Amino acid sequence: MFKIRAVAIDTYPENTVFLPRHDSGYGAEQFQALRKIEICHDGTSILATLAIMDDEHLLQRGEIGLGEQAFRRLGLPEGTRVTIAQAKPPASLEAVRRKIGGDTLTDDEIAAIIRDVARHLYSPMEIAAFLVACAAFMTTDETLALTRAMANVGNRLKWDAPLVVDKHCIGGIPGNRTSMIVVPIVAAHGLIIPKTSSRAITSPSGTSDTMEVLANVDISVERMRDIVAHEKAVLAWGGRVNLSPADDVLISVERPLRIDTYEQMVASILSKKLAAGSTHLVIDIPVGPTAKVRSHNEAVRLRKLFEYVAGKVGITIDVVLTDGSQPIGRGIGPVLEARDVMAVLRGEPNAPADLRDRAVMLAGRVLDFDPRIKGGQGHARALELLESGAALAAMERLILAQGPQQQPMPLGELTFEVPAPRDGRVTAIDCHLIARIARLAGAPMEKGAGIDLLCKVGDPVGAGQPLYRIHATSQTGLNFACELAGEASGYTVAA
Amino acid sequence: MFKIRAVAIDTYPENTVFLPRHDSGYGAEQFQALRKIEICHDGTSILATLAIMDDEHLLQRGEIGLGEQAFRRLGLPEGTRVTIAQAKPPASLEAVRRKIGGDTLTDDEIAAIIRDVARHLYSPMEIAAFLVACAAFMTTDETLALTRAMANVGNRLKWDAPLVVDKHCIGGIPGNRTSMIVVPIVAAHGLIIPKTSSRAITSPSGTSDTMEVLANVDISVERMRDIVAHEKAVLAWGGRVNLSPADDVLISVERPLRIDTYEQMVASILSKKLAAGSTHLVIDIPVGPTAKVRSHNEAVRLRKLFEYVAGKVGITIDVVLTDGSQPIGRGIGPVLEARDVMAVLRGEPNAPADLRDRAVMLAGRVLDFDPRIKGGQGHARALELLESGAALAAMERLILAQGPQQQPMPLGELTFEVPAPRDGRVTAIDCHLIARIARLAGAPMEKGAGIDLLCKVGDPVGAGQPLYRIHATSQTGLNFACELAGEASGYTVAA
Repeated sequence: MFKIRAVAIDTYPENTVFLPRHDSGYGAEQFQALRKIEICHDGTSILATLAIMDDEHLLQRGEIGLGEQAFRRLGLPEGTRVTIAQAKPPASLEAVRRKIGGDTLTDDEIAAIIRDVARHLYSPMEIAAFLVACAAFMTTDETLALTRAMANVGNRLKWDAPLVVDKHCIGGIPGNRTSMIVVPIVAAHGLIIPKTSSRAITSPSGTSDTMEVLANVDISVERMRDIVAHEKAVLAWGGRVNLSPADDVLISVERPLRIDTYEQMVASILSKKLAAGSTHLVIDIPVGPTAKVRSHNEAVRLRKLFEYVAGKVGITIDVVLTDGSQPIGRGIGPVLEARDVMAVLRGEPNAPADLRDRAVMLAGRVLDFDPRIKGGQGHARALELLESGAALAAMERLILAQGPQQQPMPLGELTFEVPAPRDGRVTAIDCHLIARIARLAGAPMEKGAGIDLLCKVGDPVGAGQPLYRIHATSQTGLNFACELAGEASGYTVAA
Repeated sequence: MFKIRAVAIDTYPENTVFLPRHDSGYGAEQFQALRKIEICHDGTSILATLAIMDDEHLLQRGEIGLGEQAFRRLGLPEGTRVTIAQAKPPASLEAVRRKIGGDTLTDDEIAAIIRDVARHLYSPMEIAAFLVACAAFMTTDETLALTRAMANVGNRLKWDAPLVVDKHCIGGIPGNRTSMIVVPIVAAHGLIIPKTSSRAITSPSGTSDTMEVLANVDISVERMRDIVAHEKAVLAWGGRVNLSPADDVLISVERPLRIDTYEQMVASILSKKLAAGSTHLVIDIPVGPTAKVRSHNEAVRLRKLFEYVAGKVGITIDVVLTDGSQPIGRGIGPVLEARDVMAVLRGEPNAPADLRDRAVMLAGRVLDFDPRIKGGQGHARALELLESGAALAAMERLILAQGPQQQPMPLGELTFEVPAPRDGRVTAIDCHLIARIARLAGAPMEKGAGIDLLCKVGDPVGAGQPLYRIHATSQTGLNFACELAGEASGYTVAA
């Protein structure tokens, strides 16, 4: 029996428990060899990674320390008596081992793995093993089982409407913030589009990060229902409504490893749509040399996998292949993207045309799901709703309903302009590099950090003319971004 | 610039750096998203996992804390000024990603991965990704490249002799401590057998753990040379001589995941033998229902892989398939195994016959490498050296040369006898379960902990008669072991 004590150390995303070496009763090395221990109290328990505390001042005799994550997840007051035990590896790991050995898993086995992942019973190492084993070989039926399993472990939203539409981009293109234009267009038309989206994990901004510049996105399921009832739409952070907690855990390992298999992507996206209650979905797959999907053939394979799984889980899907050869719009990073989005909605003359055209096209495909719309007339209807100001009005109502942002969100005032190395023409922009530079500048955590693109592919430039401007809110952020931009700007300028 | 400060927290095996939240200059969340940072001073650097310190009393302004591993690995005094940077993922990870995608890697790519692994640039998650990708598909030439790469990153031992013999068991059978009998027999014959072995990672004892009950095993390369020059042999801990540092890192992930592919096993074993300068090698592959290799066909596939890679790297190999259906000997755990080994060498009447027979057989196969021995006469020669006491004398000299153990190593006095559930006959003993129970009792960290088998397969037992005795040195260890033994004893007793 130990008394718990909070230790003010943040080891995100892992739980950490601090055990005094002098007082463990059981040789600390023995626990150490196991690395993970289980902390139990009255039927509640969490798993935590073990650290041995050799500083005798930090913990009293008979105490164990819990890091911030562990203390929060256990949710008990300091001084509570707990017992500890060696963590038993989750039983579903046996199925993972069989998958590593090349076996095909049953629906039940996949469901058990996903349940244990959602309960944080897997370590990053074990998750990596599962993901890589799946990357080696995964049948379409396993992908389908994975999709269903992930949708089943979280919340499921239900909407009282025959048609609940959504639009999703597979990502990878900086500045491609079309959702914040598509949603108000579709809402203005009158279809229900309750859009939940993620925060950025490795990109410089997610739809939630950008929307948060304008309005609150941390919205409970109950308030989402209210808002959708009045506004037909919502633009909320999906993490709050816990639609696919297992997917959130898997993503925390997929991203640093850059495991981006089509099977994982399809299961991740469709499980969330299924849990969110979507009936009709437009998927945007950008194709380009630095995009996630690099050839037309690959895009077709991905499209077919989306269509197969969506069909089996009962979602009507329209997969659109789009130009993913360079960033969309000009701003990259939350404040800069919000600026572009509002410029398009307001019909400002300098609004980025590529962002506008892409959003109208996608909104048109969503509107084509409406049986009242004549075949192929979605695009014209979307354009009309944008040009008439109806979409802007819908967005303004949505911002009011969600709660306008109260914090000032200024653009980062520390700037650096990256110059063209020679006279010529911009022939390519590397989406991946531009995203990394924007991220180093501080996006998305620093809302005002990011990149403002001053030229796009095809533009003529003179030597020394600025290609893009880096915005940062701290000198360290600016330095990190400039360092990478100095090594590789992301722009190709040909004479 | 930060000043380093030692923080008395042990986060084995990972390096940890503690950064104060209030004083990082750069948003801690931004580092946090990256998880790993690089700590640099004058050309030296280490990578460490980031923890954010919210307790303002533990670190002064301008300080960063280093956990025990990180402080040791950086090797600089407290107060040294260091800079920090985001850790760049190792360049060789791109090859790992291609391997995940199903590619075959070149020798150079595998060498680069192994160099970066040895330098601790890979996280456990990244190592798991590499291992599982290799488990999915690996050519024999990749296995060969992996073997060479692992041998190349550590020390290489050279011996001034045409014949340097060794013997290795792939493991998995508790109590199978034949090396400590084979080595003195072979040394008594006069062949050079410089045996380095590992400590147990997930088993209840490694050869080094058991040998350490009798003598010092932490021996420098220079002293190894001296000892081998006089005694023809040594029984040393391989970790000290750093023969395959990359393999040690890979093993730290393979073991908890129980990734035990033949390719990894062959590369791991042969890289160490290559680095240790062995020219002739006997490999023992136990085959049994709870052993690592479970069928004759599998054993043959593994044998062929050993033969292919050994042939290419110039090691003469003799692969022996042995009975792996139950533990060998009676004692499991360092002190108990040392007792059995010495009983065999001393020719005591109650010495375990199976351990003795297995060791003599393997020693005979090693002696058959000697061109002066007539074909097939190795076994008789081995038996003669054991029975004459020559092997015991060789072992006694070796213990003196390595330095006899000065610490008392008593058997654990806390005991529990696991009873037979019914009258009948022992029909099976689960090697894997018995090993886990011995480990829970405290072996190998607690030398005196372990299991003493009182019956073996085929023995008649009466209900309640003890099957084995658990020895522990702490009540917690005894409780853990008894808990598992209560769930599943590892013995099958049929009426």
